[in-house]
Amino acid sequence: MVKNPPVIGRLAILGIGLIGSSVSRAARQYGAAGEVVAYDPDAGRLATALELSAIDRAATSIADAVADADMVLICAPVGAMGGIAAAAAPAMRPGAILSDVGSTKTSVVADVAPHVPAGIHFVPAHPVAGTEKSGPEHGFATLFDGRWCILTPPSIEGADAGAVDLCTRFWRAMGSNVDVMTPEHHDTVLAITSHLPHLISYTIVGTVMDLEEHHHWEVFKYAAGGFRDFSRLAGSDPVMWRDVFLNNRDAVLEMLGRFTEDLQALQRAIRWGEADKLEALFTRTRDARRAIIEARQA
Amino acid sequence: MVKNPPVIGRLAILGIGLIGSSVSRAARQYGAAGEVVAYDPDAGRLATALELSAIDRAATSIADAVADADMVLICAPVGAMGGIAAAAAPAMRPGAILSDVGSTKTSVVADVAPHVPAGIHFVPAHPVAGTEKSGPEHGFATLFDGRWCILTPPSIEGADAGAVDLCTRFWRAMGSNVDVMTPEHHDTVLAITSHLPHLISYTIVGTVMDLEEHHHWEVFKYAAGGFRDFSRLAGSDPVMWRDVFLNNRDAVLEMLGRFTEDLQALQRAIRWGEADKLEALFTRTRDARRAIIEARQA
Ligand SMILES: NC(=O)c1ccc[n+]([C@@H]2O[C@H](COP(=O)([O-])OP(=O)(O)OC[C@H]3O[C@@H](n4cnc5c(N)ncnc54)[C@H](OP(=O)(O)O)[C@@H]3O)[C@@H](O)[C@H]2O)c1
Ligand SMILES: NC(=O)c1ccc[n+]([C@@H]2O[C@H](COP(=O)([O-])OP(=O)(O)OC[C@H]3O[C@@H](n4cnc5c(N)ncnc54)[C@H](OP(=O)(O)O)[C@@H]3O)[C@@H](O)[C@H]2O)c1
Repeated sequence: MVKNPPVIGRLAILGIGLIGSSVSRAARQYGAAGEVVAYDPDAGRLATALELSAIDRAATSIADAVADADMVLICAPVGAMGGIAAAAAPAMRPGAILSDVGSTKTSVVADVAPHVPAGIHFVPAHPVAGTEKSGPEHGFATLFDGRWCILTPPSIEGADAGAVDLCTRFWRAMGSNVDVMTPEHHDTVLAITSHLPHLISYTIVGTVMDLEEHHHWEVFKYAAGGFRDFSRLAGSDPVMWRDVFLNNRDAVLEMLGRFTEDLQALQRAIRWGEADKLEALFTRTRDARRAIIEARQA
Repeated sequence: MVKNPPVIGRLAILGIGLIGSSVSRAARQYGAAGEVVAYDPDAGRLATALELSAIDRAATSIADAVADADMVLICAPVGAMGGIAAAAAPAMRPGAILSDVGSTKTSVVADVAPHVPAGIHFVPAHPVAGTEKSGPEHGFATLFDGRWCILTPPSIEGADAGAVDLCTRFWRAMGSNVDVMTPEHHDTVLAITSHLPHLISYTIVGTVMDLEEHHHWEVFKYAAGGFRDFSRLAGSDPVMWRDVFLNNRDAVLEMLGRFTEDLQALQRAIRWGEADKLEALFTRTRDARRAIIEARQA
């Protein structure tokens, strides 16, 4: 059996947490990359990743990691990406690709693009896949299988077509479907599909924690009534999510504003016992959800 | 092998939807009841339940269903329970148990208790288990396995101890753990663990439906980012949930008020870029959730 050559020869991963270590495992296992070198400011994490054979080599600095890489993938919280790009880009070899996995895209483009010299191809990416865990010990190779990965080249027309194509093949090799859109569009859609749910989850767990203490246990005891689904996301990494909300502020506030208005309308209907209104709204949302899910055969 | 006699001889189920048909299947399969007779105003549902062998006999009226029953279990939306109890109680045999599965308990006690004659034992119940589906075709026997069932006898001290004990054994036979508490305490705890999550789910799906139509597809396409967990509950039965909100209004409005205040505090922190505040809150909720989950080994 002749094995296909890997899509990317040498991959450098900067930040070896949940996502970084999952990409590393998946890339090596599914032939998306031939070799993975990683750097993380936390030496313990880097050692863990090496012990778990999640990476091939631990680099001693960002410059060391990226020197001979064909692709550099920044897998740190989005607030750190500008600084990391500033250190990485000058040390990269001409023709290499600089990418990331950040959950916000407008801010990443704004923070990273100024540091990208001519000859380096910048293709931001966001794999819409994850768990509420963090750290390299929780990464796994199948995380991206069957999920979407969104690429947001700063100017879709202007981006190097070869680099976008290589990134597409890189993510497809790990089982992902790939979409291309503008960073702004990405941030609007993700504000409602991901960022608002996380915000609500953190809030509702906070609301419970402010109840008297004997209630805490009961809430988790009877969590099968709906709370379980709603509290899972609140286990997610605080630094990652702090950065997401600060870096997609406008879209998150816009969606949160719409959501709050709608919630207040429902609150009013409950207070005034408007039975028909409640039933009509619940019927509409149930039917809409079903129609969309059936159409997608999901 | 000698089979134990069933906990309850003849069980009458009024309302053969998701919960009614699941109790019926479970009760017969696990020896909680010897025979199940059901009544539902929707003749089609009753026929479906019979065809699926989910019940032993379809009754022609409430009085017909309850005549020789040892236990009568009302499995209709909570707003209908008073009327059903008024029709059922006078036709029941002395010494029998009247119970229900309603998701609210203070209102059920207020609506049903006035119709209960001396000699009939009223023991309200709420199995904290369910799905977003409705109707007898979606019921299944293992629904209550490993879940909690909460009993709220109107006055815990005054309730007939034998009847409460029989209900306890009835639910345990179907795999449930049983708790006893006051209706008011039940309604407070369920307002946050179940009713508020459903309210949020209906709201967020409604918010999405008000976006431009091309967004709808994208939202469900990228639902793995968190939205999937949050929209599932919005597929739940509109009539059942209309009744829940109208019948647990005070507790729901109280919890919704706390939640909204907390959400506004977060909104403000995002607007003003208060990074430390966000990280501190997210750390607190993550740690609290983990501690409780670990302590429960859930
Ligand atoms: N988790 C998800 O569900 C998910 C999904 C899609 C995309 N993402 C995105 O993926 C990225 C990483 O998230 P994650 O879940 O993998 O978080 P994580 O498990 O906490 O890992 C982040 C890693 O980045 C490191 N890091 C921080 N500053 C760095 C720097 N200046 N240089 C190099 N590494 C640095 C962290 O090290 P320290 O511990 O020393 O700070 C940590 O090891 C984020 O941008 C996030 O938005 C996450
Ligand atoms: N679903 C859950 O997750 C869950 C969990 C725990 C408890 N509960 C409680 O269980 C009860 C039933 O919910 P469900 O999910 O099983 O709903 P469902 O599938 O919609 O079933 C409700 C059934 O009650 C019938 N019904 C309505 N009015 C009636 C009347 N006057 N007499 C007799 N039957 C009548 C309905 O018939 P029509 O179709 O003709 O109206 C329907 O067949 C509710 O009180 C709910 O709060 C639900």
